[in-house]
Amino acid sequence: MSTISVVMGSKSDWPTVKNACAILDQFGVDYEKHVISAHRMPKEMFAFAQEATSKGIKVIIACAGGAAHLPGMIAANTPLPVIGIPGQTKALGGMDSLLSIVQMPAGIPVATTAIGVAGAKNAALLAIQILGTTNQALQDKIIAYRQEMHNAAVESEAELD
Amino acid sequence: MSTISVVMGSKSDWPTVKNACAILDQFGVDYEKHVISAHRMPKEMFAFAQEATSKGIKVIIACAGGAAHLPGMIAANTPLPVIGIPGQTKALGGMDSLLSIVQMPAGIPVATTAIGVAGAKNAALLAIQILGTTNQALQDKIIAYRQEMHNAAVESEAELD
Amino acid sequence: MSTISVVMGSKSDWPTVKNACAILDQFGVDYEKHVISAHRMPKEMFAFAQEATSKGIKVIIACAGGAAHLPGMIAANTPLPVIGIPGQTKALGGMDSLLSIVQMPAGIPVATTAIGVAGAKNAALLAIQILGTTNQALQDKIIAYRQEMHNAAVESEAELD
Amino acid sequence: MSTISVVMGSKSDWPTVKNACAILDQFGVDYEKHVISAHRMPKEMFAFAQEATSKGIKVIIACAGGAAHLPGMIAANTPLPVIGIPGQTKALGGMDSLLSIVQMPAGIPVATTAIGVAGAKNAALLAIQILGTTNQALQDKIIAYRQEMHNAAVESEAELD
Amino acid sequence: MSTISVVMGSKSDWPTVKNACAILDQFGVDYEKHVISAHRMPKEMFAFAQEATSKGIKVIIACAGGAAHLPGMIAANTPLPVIGIPGQTKALGGMDSLLSIVQMPAGIPVATTAIGVAGAKNAALLAIQILGTTNQALQDKIIAYRQEMHNAAVESEAELD
Amino acid sequence: MSTISVVMGSKSDWPTVKNACAILDQFGVDYEKHVISAHRMPKEMFAFAQEATSKGIKVIIACAGGAAHLPGMIAANTPLPVIGIPGQTKALGGMDSLLSIVQMPAGIPVATTAIGVAGAKNAALLAIQILGTTNQALQDKIIAYRQEMHNAAVESEAELD
Amino acid sequence: MSTISVVMGSKSDWPTVKNACAILDQFGVDYEKHVISAHRMPKEMFAFAQEATSKGIKVIIACAGGAAHLPGMIAANTPLPVIGIPGQTKALGGMDSLLSIVQMPAGIPVATTAIGVAGAKNAALLAIQILGTTNQALQDKIIAYRQEMHNAAVESEAELD
Amino acid sequence: MSTISVVMGSKSDWPTVKNACAILDQFGVDYEKHVISAHRMPKEMFAFAQEATSKGIKVIIACAGGAAHLPGMIAANTPLPVIGIPGQTKALGGMDSLLSIVQMPAGIPVATTAIGVAGAKNAALLAIQILGTTNQALQDKIIAYRQEMHNAAVESEAELD
Repeated sequence: MSTISVVMGSKSDWPTVKNACAILDQFGVDYEKHVISAHRMPKEMFAFAQEATSKGIKVIIACAGGAAHLPGMIAANTPLPVIGIPGQTKALGGMDSLLSIVQMPAGIPVATTAIGVAGAKNAALLAIQILGTTNQALQDKIIAYRQEMHNAAVESEAELD
Repeated sequence: MSTISVVMGSKSDWPTVKNACAILDQFGVDYEKHVISAHRMPKEMFAFAQEATSKGIKVIIACAGGAAHLPGMIAANTPLPVIGIPGQTKALGGMDSLLSIVQMPAGIPVATTAIGVAGAKNAALLAIQILGTTNQALQDKIIAYRQEMHNAAVESEAELD
Repeated sequence: MSTISVVMGSKSDWPTVKNACAILDQFGVDYEKHVISAHRMPKEMFAFAQEATSKGIKVIIACAGGAAHLPGMIAANTPLPVIGIPGQTKALGGMDSLLSIVQMPAGIPVATTAIGVAGAKNAALLAIQILGTTNQALQDKIIAYRQEMHNAAVESEAELD
Repeated sequence: MSTISVVMGSKSDWPTVKNACAILDQFGVDYEKHVISAHRMPKEMFAFAQEATSKGIKVIIACAGGAAHLPGMIAANTPLPVIGIPGQTKALGGMDSLLSIVQMPAGIPVATTAIGVAGAKNAALLAIQILGTTNQALQDKIIAYRQEMHNAAVESEAELD
Repeated sequence: MSTISVVMGSKSDWPTVKNACAILDQFGVDYEKHVISAHRMPKEMFAFAQEATSKGIKVIIACAGGAAHLPGMIAANTPLPVIGIPGQTKALGGMDSLLSIVQMPAGIPVATTAIGVAGAKNAALLAIQILGTTNQALQDKIIAYRQEMHNAAVESEAELD
Repeated sequence: MSTISVVMGSKSDWPTVKNACAILDQFGVDYEKHVISAHRMPKEMFAFAQEATSKGIKVIIACAGGAAHLPGMIAANTPLPVIGIPGQTKALGGMDSLLSIVQMPAGIPVATTAIGVAGAKNAALLAIQILGTTNQALQDKIIAYRQEMHNAAVESEAELD
Repeated sequence: MSTISVVMGSKSDWPTVKNACAILDQFGVDYEKHVISAHRMPKEMFAFAQEATSKGIKVIIACAGGAAHLPGMIAANTPLPVIGIPGQTKALGGMDSLLSIVQMPAGIPVATTAIGVAGAKNAALLAIQILGTTNQALQDKIIAYRQEMHNAAVESEAELD
Repeated sequence: MSTISVVMGSKSDWPTVKNACAILDQFGVDYEKHVISAHRMPKEMFAFAQEATSKGIKVIIACAGGAAHLPGMIAANTPLPVIGIPGQTKALGGMDSLLSIVQMPAGIPVATTAIGVAGAKNAALLAIQILGTTNQALQDKIIAYRQEMHNAAVESEAELD
């Protein structure tokens, strides 16, 4: 059973979203992944959002670009926390995606991360941190992951020049 | 029977949206108006969008602000033309609303008008122009309306100083 | 006789605009296409706009970039609905085109779509949806087109990884 | 014992942040609240972040404006999920706060909500939704809260004119 | 006979434009002023632009806001230099007006000044400077005007505190 | 004797500025061209600006990028009309150059054209239009140039597809 | 003898700049203050910048708004460190001032602080920190000032509610 | 003993930061350089900032991109002047880095330079100018450096065409 569901508005988001999945793989967290377009598959999107709790999902990660409605519309249809990844866009760099995701009205939050790949990685880490609030093993993995990041950062100094 | 449906994401959009309704009144076009929140009333929104054609609606006008998903989500659920009015917002002036409405992905257009009151008036006029493509009387009213606007603009010069 | 007219401010807009024409071809809608520059061919632009109704045109699609005056100036000279496509631009990504097209004053709407190729496709679809309000066959084609989009989106999930 | 900690970079953020606290009160969730300035109280900020897990905190909400480093710096020092509220600002509307909070590098996410009051309310709701992933009573309260929002939205239509 | 023509897209631009007229008055330069809306009075706009040279006009000043097409469309219809004043706007501060005026395509320049009142004053001064290239008396007045500005700036220091 | 002076803040502006010079060559207008850096050659810049009238210069064209002070500082030191070309920039596309040039305070205008190559071409055309206000031959050349542009635009339609 | 010189482009900057002077007063640092307009007093600006070292000035603080050339042009004419304060502006919030000051080309830095009042205070503190690099008493005062800020921040928590 | 410390948030900032180091090398100023990530190495960052004065550091240069907290957090923990270089970013060009660094609250300044390479060079020059306020030899080197820049700019004119 998956505890995290990763959805993207289009197959073209996969080069971004796969960075989230790689983190989830690395942490050994079960997840499902789906292409669910808010605009081309609205019924599936609603069904997905409304059934998420009953399937045992705990956190949803959703990536979309441009008029990025997917994260917010899923959030409107589930009591689960929804994490939104703004896709980078060709014309406006992703400012459109960011504002479409983060500026949700009072009542329905979307936990927004950075534009693009960094945001995808962080969406996965945030989902794990959320699970980690009641799963000490996962929280320990986050702590260990950060220790590795820390060590890599420290060691990278030797590589200057 | 109404041919135009005017919806807003929140009662707080009414001071903007009423400018659209005033134009529709002025042109004698039947319309219905509703508060339908994409995020707080998603089921009603879907039902509304999916039933619009069968009710005889020809054009939908939708206003929302911030992460303004209402116009695009309605558009995704009806083959009717949907006109989006970006609400002016306190923090970002309405740039968030504009990008959330206009930057729709290929496949599901939203006919976007200007931010705020001018956009509301123009949404109504655009809806009437759409009806006017097969309703000569309405098209004539548009022509007459413009003639009045023209005259008022011409006459306004005398009021300088 | 064409019911849709597709105009662009410059031949350099064709790589964007041809995406609109491809959709119109796909739907079997008769259209004409023209290069009409607001700034280099103002008389032709005016003549074009003023004669559009008498030629039987029902909807006009206009694409321009930068200080993109073409859609708005055509709109000012015809009672027909005008759809504006903001061209992507090198310096500012198309934000200049978008604001020049969408921020029309009260009285003269331009139905604005997204910046660039997605906007071009959507301009064509929006024009067809407008015709579809009184043409059931076209509306049915929109519904079928969406069903295909839907199916393609559903199937694309299998192509992840 | 508090499970949520609400911090703000300055007393001047309180008019925004109190909207988060009001939601937490309404849901009966224990929380603590603190003024902790990243720039004026860095030691306290670090101590706060590093001790949060041992105090039993599960989720941290942090609000800051301008060069809003507080949410990200807390996030860097705790494995707990951190929710960031971008404060609205006088000169740039809050775009500065938003980008300073949301554009975190890969490795350290901040769950960013909307600029200003809506973001404050949503930060509280998001924290409750996070707790609700393993607390059915809280999740039920979220569902009930949304039902009330839904009803209020539905009823608001009657108040138009 | 007027050598400068000052036009505005709407009577609502007058509080800005009157600052240009005050400068022209101060310099004793003959000018005419008109409300000419690009969108509501397109025929008058064309006629105005096309007849300007034959009336003895040497420089045209045009102010508009939002999708500010007036300066560029006049410029497209006259070989005279056209100065554009971007009106300040409620939603976007005037960024829309600025980009609509300044981002003209190669071939048809608009000499753009600052947003709002400063831009209106500078439009008048720029027009006078243009006339001054072949009118020594006017150029001398510009030099004298600057000397007065200089003196006022120098003296203003004494007013601090 | 040159009547137009073309200056650029750096040799790196030449790929942009040469488009202005090509227009001036095409119109047979005498011009001088210089690299004058506001920040690296301030004395030369001042001397240049202060001596321009006595050398017979009628119009100055200045191009700069980023914190583009050159056009405004030249304008502050000469009663001649100064045309500013905002250079396109790597980080911000030229928005920085545009605002640094166009947002001049009341008293010292800079006639600003579009960002980059189109702006360079238009700066030259604007300078010629200014000279053309008292030089019928040049004004006639502008009219002829536009006729050619018009013809080229008309003919370009045949090249679609 | 003053070691710090505080200049502003216009008397209208004084409500911002006085916040810098208040800090300098509080620290007991001698300073002079001047209105020096880059555009209206260019000769005085050059003279000021070129004579600053010989007068014993160690750091220059300059505030300007819009096309804010003052800090950069002073910096181009003195080897002293120049601190730039971007003035808040009516139309664009101060984004124009910020970009005009901070985006200096390689070779001539301006140490830029925040837009408006916070930036004015910080300009003074930065100047004192610069002097403090070789003046232990001043550095100690900075440390004490921060301790007071710290204490005030800590105590402000008690004032919530 | 180094008087300048150059730090970067990530090894990936080195291509930008090395331009600062090259300037320092050219001026013969001793400096140390470090990778110190605000988010991945917070303890080291704090220790670094708090120990800087005792190590004899006089000026700190810090580069970071995106939610660029490094310069501001170092500044909060040292009385030394801190110079911030905003890294250019892929999605938003560096506007995120710029606002995260420059918009510091009153009390803790960061001396911000331009986005990217020009900013890196200028950060080094600014640091040298700061040292030069009490080191005549360094100030003389700045003067000589500028003379060389000046000469190179003057000579570059001959290379046009």
